[in-house]
Amino acid sequence: MNYRIIKRTLGWLLLFETAFFCVPIVTALVYGEKEIYHFLFTMAGTALLGGLCLIGKPKDDKIFAKEGIVITASSWILLSLFGAIPLYTTGGYPTYIDALFETVSGFTTTGSSVLSSDVVASLPKCILMWRSFTHWIGGMGVLVFIMVFLPLCGGGRNMNIMKAESPGPSVGKLLPKMRSTARVLYLIYTSLTVLEFVMLVFDMPVFDAINASFATAGTGGFSIRADGFAGYSSYSQIVVTVFMVLFSVNFASYFFILCGKWKEAFTTEVRTFLIIVLSAITLITLNLTLSNVLVVGEAIKHSAFSVSSIISTTGFVTENFDMWPAFSKTVLVLCMFIGACAGSTGGGIKVSRLVIMFKGVRHETQRLLHPKQIKKITMDGKVVEHETVRSVNNYLIAFIFIFVLSLLVISLDGQDLVTNFTAVSATINNIGPGLGVVGPVGNFGDFSILSKVVFIFDMLIGRLEIFPMILLFAPSTWRK
Amino acid sequence: MNYRIIKRTLGWLLLFETAFFCVPIVTALVYGEKEIYHFLFTMAGTALLGGLCLIGKPKDDKIFAKEGIVITASSWILLSLFGAIPLYTTGGYPTYIDALFETVSGFTTTGSSVLSSDVVASLPKCILMWRSFTHWIGGMGVLVFIMVFLPLCGGGRNMNIMKAESPGPSVGKLLPKMRSTARVLYLIYTSLTVLEFVMLVFDMPVFDAINASFATAGTGGFSIRADGFAGYSSYSQIVVTVFMVLFSVNFASYFFILCGKWKEAFTTEVRTFLIIVLSAITLITLNLTLSNVLVVGEAIKHSAFSVSSIISTTGFVTENFDMWPAFSKTVLVLCMFIGACAGSTGGGIKVSRLVIMFKGVRHETQRLLHPKQIKKITMDGKVVEHETVRSVNNYLIAFIFIFVLSLLVISLDGQDLVTNFTAVSATINNIGPGLGVVGPVGNFGDFSILSKVVFIFDMLIGRLEIFPMILLFAPSTWRK
Repeated sequence: MNYRIIKRTLGWLLLFETAFFCVPIVTALVYGEKEIYHFLFTMAGTALLGGLCLIGKPKDDKIFAKEGIVITASSWILLSLFGAIPLYTTGGYPTYIDALFETVSGFTTTGSSVLSSDVVASLPKCILMWRSFTHWIGGMGVLVFIMVFLPLCGGGRNMNIMKAESPGPSVGKLLPKMRSTARVLYLIYTSLTVLEFVMLVFDMPVFDAINASFATAGTGGFSIRADGFAGYSSYSQIVVTVFMVLFSVNFASYFFILCGKWKEAFTTEVRTFLIIVLSAITLITLNLTLSNVLVVGEAIKHSAFSVSSIISTTGFVTENFDMWPAFSKTVLVLCMFIGACAGSTGGGIKVSRLVIMFKGVRHETQRLLHPKQIKKITMDGKVVEHETVRSVNNYLIAFIFIFVLSLLVISLDGQDLVTNFTAVSATINNIGPGLGVVGPVGNFGDFSILSKVVFIFDMLIGRLEIFPMILLFAPSTWRK
Repeated sequence: MNYRIIKRTLGWLLLFETAFFCVPIVTALVYGEKEIYHFLFTMAGTALLGGLCLIGKPKDDKIFAKEGIVITASSWILLSLFGAIPLYTTGGYPTYIDALFETVSGFTTTGSSVLSSDVVASLPKCILMWRSFTHWIGGMGVLVFIMVFLPLCGGGRNMNIMKAESPGPSVGKLLPKMRSTARVLYLIYTSLTVLEFVMLVFDMPVFDAINASFATAGTGGFSIRADGFAGYSSYSQIVVTVFMVLFSVNFASYFFILCGKWKEAFTTEVRTFLIIVLSAITLITLNLTLSNVLVVGEAIKHSAFSVSSIISTTGFVTENFDMWPAFSKTVLVLCMFIGACAGSTGGGIKVSRLVIMFKGVRHETQRLLHPKQIKKITMDGKVVEHETVRSVNNYLIAFIFIFVLSLLVISLDGQDLVTNFTAVSATINNIGPGLGVVGPVGNFGDFSILSKVVFIFDMLIGRLEIFPMILLFAPSTWRK
């Protein structure tokens, strides 16, 4: 293990976090909030520690798979540990674990909160801005962000970090160099965020538009108002619906669209994702209108918003879907697990994984009929390598094991089964709200400290797609 | 497709079902019940149709993978379609679909009922006996049963039927010939059933002891009394607890024990299964006593009974575990999915599959750390072939797809999410009771016909381990 390069990268990470704190500090300046000092003190701390970590140059700046995994997992933990400090010291959160839950929920773009929405609405604006900004940074990945500005490691091995931090079964290089790919991705990401802001700012205060854009872009879902997104106009709700879907699409697709390669843009995954979104909206709309819960127009609007919000793993709310009929709730719970496309800012299992799994099963049935026939699984005209299929399958299995383990621990709190199941689902899939106690009008505040720690891990495990977090704590990683 | 051999085998199946009807007929004779005529008429029907199917000898008696799958899946459907007739015509069940649900629940050793337990208790004794006997036949497999008496096909290809009908990721031959293996298995099965009967008959009426033994042996779980198993003595409850576990163990283990090969008997799967059972009992006992639900003695007894009943997928009930704390219920729901050992009469995902999955994930993490290292997964000192791992993974994925699809359809009935989730789980894992409306004191009667049809498929899919049922309805199976 190359400890020096790990220390150095974490040092850079802290210096970047120092820079990130400028966002809430500027906010506090604009609104004249006294909480500015809490951010300034934390900033000084991260700057000092970050600087200390940079002393001494590593002999070897190569990052292998092992180091890539350790750097990624520990970066996200470190980022959250420091990011939580101002939330705790300003007194908005009862314990440091609560503040950490909220910060992890921010960076992992989950958007679950330990506070009720009216308490959130009364928080200082600099805190609200910090929460939303963590979504934006976490969405595309903090190490990928650093990579835009710095050559993190030599020998073209940035791939090992990109692999560990980017969502989806495989990472595609858009350009020969990983750093150029990171730049293109952040350029698209920033442009889309700005576009959303421009479209929203006509209809809501600037502060609200910035927060909503950050939270949509990262598919995070922190809300700054007591009524979530219900209080905004239909126009704003529709704009956000569209952008939640846009941010759930593989960003490579936008790159291909910009290059005029339309066929490459609409991959099997993107098409499947859009079909799932439309089907879910249609099914819920039918269910809501046929059960006389909402009239057609309202049903379409709220079902489109809720489906986009859940499947993109954003978690914004316009309607209390916990009160919807069982069928609609079941569709939404399924959307929680499906999640967004690989290479987007969304969470969940990812559509490409589901497509590969489905093809694997179809393959298996054919092999039972014709045991001697050997065919390969293909997607978008390319062979899906056996290794990819295997890693997708193991991802699902690891996901289930962690899900089950989390469920067991949090069920000790004695909440009902639907609450527990959807609470784990909402955190591990980085969504935000679940059903029952953690439903659209509820929050995670009532869980015990132990459960909150479990949720913190689940959010990180979900965002980093399981293996980096497991490996960080596996003894074999640290063995020589 | 060799249609003639399929027709011939199905003919034999119907003739065997004709013989099976002797069990309820003798019961009706003993208790002087007029429902005997319903069984006699159905018997005549199966005999006639079975005989007709046997006319004309097939040119070729080879059964390939394809035919094995079609024969197995259609056998179970045919068996149930005819087995349901007397249940329906005697008037105990409101519709034929209800009678079919009950018969499929019997043969697949599920033990879910559409009737409330006091209605069941008032059914004629011959009907009760038929229900319990279907468990016993279904437990070890009807085609395996036929194989004991008849050479189903030539060229040593009985394997293709055994594979499709036996639970678990791979079928081990105990003896060089598949028919000898089938005989040994049925001998062990019968001996254990008789042993249980002998131990129970001291403490309960003969009729009850026969029914309980059949239902335990097949890990079925149909109860003949209004209070399920709660009314029997602690002695009987403990005997049944032990036998539920015994029937969940791979029958090959008993063969090895008889041969004195103790090491081969206690495979990784068996050891893991026993550890899971003991852990689950301990956890629930602790939870029940610490939450002051039951005193220690009672807690141990009921938790041991419930865990054994659920994990063996029997489904007998001594306590309404739907009223237990969330943690205990969560443990039980997990046991529903874990299920028994491969090669037993129990259902669920099977412990050996879980072990292979777990090893697969561990393997995957190691590969992430050391991408160039190539190691194989081993179990009990033998390499687990890549094909087995792949088929286990695909089994899980297919299981989840079918689970989700079923959940969607039945949620249209508007029952709560816990009821829906555990109802699908109870049927696809061949358990019996779930939670909520289908809990220990509930039943499946309130679901719509459509949902009942879904459950019928789920029970068959669960018993035949998914692929035979999918393939029976896949167009590619029937294509030339």
